[in-house]
Amino acid sequence: MGQDTWNTAVTSIAPNEIRLRGYRIDELMGRVDFGRALYLLLRGELPDERVGRLMTAMLVSSIDHGPGAPSAHAARCAARTGASLNACVASGVLSINRFHGGAIEDCARAIREVMDCADQQKGSLDDAADELLADYKARKVRIAGYGHRVHTADPRTARLFELAAEAGVSSREIEVCQALERGLERQLGKRLPINVDGAIGALLLGMGFEFEVMNGFFILARTAGLIAQAREETTRERKMRNIAPGAHRYDGPPARQL
Amino acid sequence: MGQDTWNTAVTSIAPNEIRLRGYRIDELMGRVDFGRALYLLLRGELPDERVGRLMTAMLVSSIDHGPGAPSAHAARCAARTGASLNACVASGVLSINRFHGGAIEDCARAIREVMDCADQQKGSLDDAADELLADYKARKVRIAGYGHRVHTADPRTARLFELAAEAGVSSREIEVCQALERGLERQLGKRLPINVDGAIGALLLGMGFEFEVMNGFFILARTAGLIAQAREETTRERKMRNIAPGAHRYDGPPARQL
Amino acid sequence: MGQDTWNTAVTSIAPNEIRLRGYRIDELMGRVDFGRALYLLLRGELPDERVGRLMTAMLVSSIDHGPGAPSAHAARCAARTGASLNACVASGVLSINRFHGGAIEDCARAIREVMDCADQQKGSLDDAADELLADYKARKVRIAGYGHRVHTADPRTARLFELAAEAGVSSREIEVCQALERGLERQLGKRLPINVDGAIGALLLGMGFEFEVMNGFFILARTAGLIAQAREETTRERKMRNIAPGAHRYDGPPARQL
Amino acid sequence: MGQDTWNTAVTSIAPNEIRLRGYRIDELMGRVDFGRALYLLLRGELPDERVGRLMTAMLVSSIDHGPGAPSAHAARCAARTGASLNACVASGVLSINRFHGGAIEDCARAIREVMDCADQQKGSLDDAADELLADYKARKVRIAGYGHRVHTADPRTARLFELAAEAGVSSREIEVCQALERGLERQLGKRLPINVDGAIGALLLGMGFEFEVMNGFFILARTAGLIAQAREETTRERKMRNIAPGAHRYDGPPARQL
Repeated sequence: MGQDTWNTAVTSIAPNEIRLRGYRIDELMGRVDFGRALYLLLRGELPDERVGRLMTAMLVSSIDHGPGAPSAHAARCAARTGASLNACVASGVLSINRFHGGAIEDCARAIREVMDCADQQKGSLDDAADELLADYKARKVRIAGYGHRVHTADPRTARLFELAAEAGVSSREIEVCQALERGLERQLGKRLPINVDGAIGALLLGMGFEFEVMNGFFILARTAGLIAQAREETTRERKMRNIAPGAHRYDGPPARQL
Repeated sequence: MGQDTWNTAVTSIAPNEIRLRGYRIDELMGRVDFGRALYLLLRGELPDERVGRLMTAMLVSSIDHGPGAPSAHAARCAARTGASLNACVASGVLSINRFHGGAIEDCARAIREVMDCADQQKGSLDDAADELLADYKARKVRIAGYGHRVHTADPRTARLFELAAEAGVSSREIEVCQALERGLERQLGKRLPINVDGAIGALLLGMGFEFEVMNGFFILARTAGLIAQAREETTRERKMRNIAPGAHRYDGPPARQL
Repeated sequence: MGQDTWNTAVTSIAPNEIRLRGYRIDELMGRVDFGRALYLLLRGELPDERVGRLMTAMLVSSIDHGPGAPSAHAARCAARTGASLNACVASGVLSINRFHGGAIEDCARAIREVMDCADQQKGSLDDAADELLADYKARKVRIAGYGHRVHTADPRTARLFELAAEAGVSSREIEVCQALERGLERQLGKRLPINVDGAIGALLLGMGFEFEVMNGFFILARTAGLIAQAREETTRERKMRNIAPGAHRYDGPPARQL
Repeated sequence: MGQDTWNTAVTSIAPNEIRLRGYRIDELMGRVDFGRALYLLLRGELPDERVGRLMTAMLVSSIDHGPGAPSAHAARCAARTGASLNACVASGVLSINRFHGGAIEDCARAIREVMDCADQQKGSLDDAADELLADYKARKVRIAGYGHRVHTADPRTARLFELAAEAGVSSREIEVCQALERGLERQLGKRLPINVDGAIGALLLGMGFEFEVMNGFFILARTAGLIAQAREETTRERKMRNIAPGAHRYDGPPARQL
């Protein structure tokens, strides 16, 4: 091989043998869930089962949030024009940006900043949180990952923190989340709880993921929802309709328990 | 609500309550794996655990196939220009088409045709397979889902059929796959085994998925690989490089066992 | 060069010399308008000035149709999430499909069919048009390129036909358009005039463009509008807003003359 | 109209009347070239003919740069998988980023910085250029818009500056370009001439375009090339081939003059 040779550490392909970070893919199939496989792909090592369960729970938490989410709306807008499924998904993915999905990375960066600040000053997390929030306020930056348009106590967040405790990961990052919640209450005089994006950011940070791939979790999980939304648009609605935002109602299976 | 009201049966959103096809999402989190959640999203009902395990195994089987896969290559091509992660993913997804990923749907349609033909003629699957292959030959259409550029006995296929047997699904569709393999051997004088895309098509058909969402499985699973490939391009290679296809070598973790 | 060598007939690049289909690009600059350059790029030869003027007029006719057009809506949906300009454009382009923009190609194919039918049967264009419309009706296919949601006498169409007459192109294709209009009136009992997409399809067919690149005209011209729409969304509207379709009003420069 | 009403100043649509920034589109057709129409769309006013000619020349200058350009390569990568034309274009557009096309905006920002610095310090452009280049060097930032992989004296640049002089625009911005060239020569000890992207950035800045739409020029112009490249890939190459970068040769029309 000449000078253009380059390297990859993700997947090796040989005739009848596919290895993901060294593991045979057919050995992984049926034995690891998707969250563990994703962790392996992005971090290079297989996590234990409880961490894998947490990874999968994060994916499930972000799988869909109805047709009003900007990415679902974008996928439906493409679907109504007769776009192929992959074009619908691509349109949806292109609408996952700083203001939609992006809170995962931005909140993780804020948490890291608070931790670094507390470490450097050998001070409390609450003091460091107050400092960051004062700085954000001065720069007129809103902290990402706190508050939600619809939910005041997002059920996904509580469940994620519970599963993180079981898996024994990200405990300090969760403490920072809580310090920031208290700091926001001191600053604003009202509660602005962490949302599911912020929670995922905290957990991914604690598990050692790079900031740059964090939004990838949301993109990946939500791709499932984009497929469902695009398909529903194609099968239930007339082509080229106007999609009135917020004018939808749910007519699927009634509330039920596992 | 006025005349623009429209319906959705996927997800219902109320303050602090998100339900996927009727189930609370926080109840699903930590209790169902991603394959089961995806089945629920696309088919409306939760499958049993063994079917969920098969679903997840199908996703894991398609999670990555190295940087030479056209979608991974496309994601890297975007990454080298400085594209954001979601643009890299979208580029990759736009390269999942009839000739890459599309075999899932096309093979499933061929299997359905063979089954319908055998049912109508009350004949054997082998006769129906021969008939379809003769028709394809006359029309100069190549059957999708058979043969692979690299693998002669794709380890993923065998594992999927094993897991399908355990889950008790798609047995007739697998029989058709084998009838088509025999038919191809009669027609071509050599073995052209079913590949992983064909196998997934057979399984999804047996589980009752619509043809139109089948490629969505590949899109969804491979999105994980696109993220890993795009990230590796950004972190390991210089910007704007020429990506010589096939000139890569694997330098990741050595072969290891679960 | 080895076995992977491949050819291109579009552009040649040498140090300090760029040639488009053989012409130096710096010689073309300032001397040919964009329509002529596009014709050269796609057809391989420079058209005369009147044909170039017609080409440019086709591009101008499709440059924008307000924020309600599906592609403009899609570009705005991306813009409100904070997408970069190229991602907004890509989203818009992905919404240019069979039901939006696609009429150019489909109408051109219908016109070709009518012409071929008349030639084969040595009959009139009106008879051939009736035959095609009867066949479409039997197959429940709506003819593309006729009728418009807003316009009953699209001013762009008349202008394009005028310019085509000046350029001396596509006269027979325009006759077919009119035969189809008469046929539709006979079939439906009311006028359903050709729209701008249908007219562009007729003209491109007459000028010898391949069917497969025809929608490219619309994609290219509308990209200008997508940039303007995405930019306006970013600068005039708050991020993440709901975009109520049809609820916009025009507040730009008042009606004026060239 | 209710509270969701919003405004647009680009295009007004009424039955049988389409107005672009106040002008009837059918009046523009055949009378203004595409560059003038684009200026009108993005800046709100019709430029005079010489400025329109410069606008068109900028578009022509960027219309294609062969199959080795990253966006052309991306469009071909999509095309080989069987992607539709709009998906090929979207893939190409997603590869127009900071490192490809982005120099237009970045160079314009640098020019503005030099002009502002000279104005504030009432100093010469050369002093301001030296200051900016020293600052960039200290921050290890490479100035955008200077130097080219292939061309040492880009013929497009000279032609654009000539047309700008004829149109009487951007003269001070061009002076800054030259001051930066001299500054680079002082700093590096060798000539690193402005390239076509830098030149377009200078001209657009002088004409009053916003930085944020500047890369849109490149996106729009190159969309024409993406269509030609994707179409050539589909018609001349076998599906799913490896596209060896740099291994192409030109076999189109021989060198010829206008």
